[in-house]
Amino acid sequence: LMLFSGRAHPELAEEVAKQLGIGVVPTKAFDFANGEIYVRFQESARGADCFLMQSHTAPINKWIIEQLIMIDALKRASARSITVIVPFYGYARQDKKHRGREPISARLMADLFKTAGADRILTVDLHTDQIQGFFDGPVDHLFALPLLADYVAAKTDRNKLTVVSPDAGRVRVADRWADRLGAPLAIVHKRRDPDVANQVTVHEVVGDVNGRVCVLVDDMIDTGGTICAAADALFANGAEDVIVTATHGVLSGPAADRLKNSKVSEFVFTNTLPTPGELELDKITVLSMAPTIARAV
Amino acid sequence: LMLFSGRAHPELAEEVAKQLGIGVVPTKAFDFANGEIYVRFQESARGADCFLMQSHTAPINKWIIEQLIMIDALKRASARSITVIVPFYGYARQDKKHRGREPISARLMADLFKTAGADRILTVDLHTDQIQGFFDGPVDHLFALPLLADYVAAKTDRNKLTVVSPDAGRVRVADRWADRLGAPLAIVHKRRDPDVANQVTVHEVVGDVNGRVCVLVDDMIDTGGTICAAADALFANGAEDVIVTATHGVLSGPAADRLKNSKVSEFVFTNTLPTPGELELDKITVLSMAPTIARAV
Ligand SMILES: Nc1ncnc2c1ncn2[C@@H]1O[C@H](COP(=O)(O)O)[C@@H](O)[C@H]1O
Ligand SMILES: Nc1ncnc2c1ncn2[C@@H]1O[C@H](COP(=O)(O)O)[C@@H](O)[C@H]1O
Repeated sequence: LMLFSGRAHPELAEEVAKQLGIGVVPTKAFDFANGEIYVRFQESARGADCFLMQSHTAPINKWIIEQLIMIDALKRASARSITVIVPFYGYARQDKKHRGREPISARLMADLFKTAGADRILTVDLHTDQIQGFFDGPVDHLFALPLLADYVAAKTDRNKLTVVSPDAGRVRVADRWADRLGAPLAIVHKRRDPDVANQVTVHEVVGDVNGRVCVLVDDMIDTGGTICAAADALFANGAEDVIVTATHGVLSGPAADRLKNSKVSEFVFTNTLPTPGELELDKITVLSMAPTIARAV
Repeated sequence: LMLFSGRAHPELAEEVAKQLGIGVVPTKAFDFANGEIYVRFQESARGADCFLMQSHTAPINKWIIEQLIMIDALKRASARSITVIVPFYGYARQDKKHRGREPISARLMADLFKTAGADRILTVDLHTDQIQGFFDGPVDHLFALPLLADYVAAKTDRNKLTVVSPDAGRVRVADRWADRLGAPLAIVHKRRDPDVANQVTVHEVVGDVNGRVCVLVDDMIDTGGTICAAADALFANGAEDVIVTATHGVLSGPAADRLKNSKVSEFVFTNTLPTPGELELDKITVLSMAPTIARAV
């Protein structure tokens, strides 16, 4: 059993290695002057069960190519098996043709990993379960719910909790939370104002949140637009407090400013992706998936 | 017949389209906040023979992924055939394991294109001919030699010309030039000074260049280190003038400064890659491969 890591988020790989009582295999990896990536492992992988971790964080396309190149090198180094660990699966939101002449990039990624030489994928909270079916091989699908929900449960008065989905199209995640915490469920419904074509304007709260501590849950927070608007709607409807939690803190573009300026009392993520430095704030909590990933390995 | 282009070097695609008397198919392509790429074609590709051009320039990994995503979208849009045009083939220099536990990235790229849905590859002056064998399908391999050599021949006194290879390991390119121009051949041999371990110090010129107009030829100029040192060696050996020519002007890192400060009278490239703005200088000439590519299409 050997653990390898790309350059995207080596801290997580180090943590997983520590849990396993091994070291991450030393690897030489750098960019040539024209941006092409060079990779070489410092130890033999012959006959080993190899786990290769890479976080699909920015610059995401570069890190995906790096992972593919590392898989290729492992395959040619006679690894016995190659398991690709993608704590956050890039391009998961392009998992179907929303319109004609679009790609299905989530499927493409699965095929690219397979072609490079991956036997198995280990990932956390896929955007949709269907993506498991895209890969031609076993997919180990881990969940952050126990980690996140236990943390939230320990911090709050369970009788005051309401679980809230920020989007009527994605109630599934919130539903699981409500089940686990035995808490009531509410939904923020984005209604398009018929007077303003195509402009999302009204955030309608379905369910009672007055005087409640609301846990807004999603699989990922990207630019933070939806989640912060949903939080505002909850406060406007009398919520006593709002906690936001998501497995993947993508946190790109305007997310930093939005999170900083938000009235939300705490944001809870896992470390499937590195947290941008400017977001190392008191109100942002990052829980480690390393023990869960190590157990799966 | 439809011509598509990624965002890396749209000018070349426009030129090829013009030669063909068609337009480049309008395509919506942008980066989401987290760097994932979105692509959608504005016209139906159903039943069409599709040509998809992307230059593997910086940021190279991003443009490779974009091309793969575009291939996927074309495949799913029922294109009849998909020909990938890569005027400069990325990762061509990693075409073998120079040491153990390295990838063979040039082969990986071929496999990725195939997996995404490419039926055929059209490319210009591969770093080594072996790469043609990496792709499971037809490879149309174009040469820039006629274009470059005719230009140089028209500008110089043929009786004074000597063709020079900047590297004893790559005389093949220079050999073809010497044949075509009927000119003598010289070689710059990098000798490792035995006193300074592993340090390339001596540039030995093999062949007579005294009073000659030297054409230093290579397939690509990347950081320009080798070629500028070779030019210096030629001048030191009495060359009257030195012209540098290569198919691919990769021109990364210190290349701009080196070219500017060099005594070389003219650098001649083709437009397989875009020329960095700061290198739009009098002594840099860029010849268009668009007519050659258009003919092949
Ligand atoms: N990286 C991304 N960032 C934002 N939106 C995306 C991204 N990738 C895909 N999408 C779009 O998000 C929508 C699907 O999101 P969802 O309904 O949450 O699955 C589609 O319109 C996609 O084109
Ligand atoms: N993008 C690159 N830039 C510089 N050197 C590279 C690049 N890709 C591969 N190489 C190295 O270049 C050497 C092969 O170059 P060549 O002998 O010209 O084929 C090998 O040591 C490669 O690892």
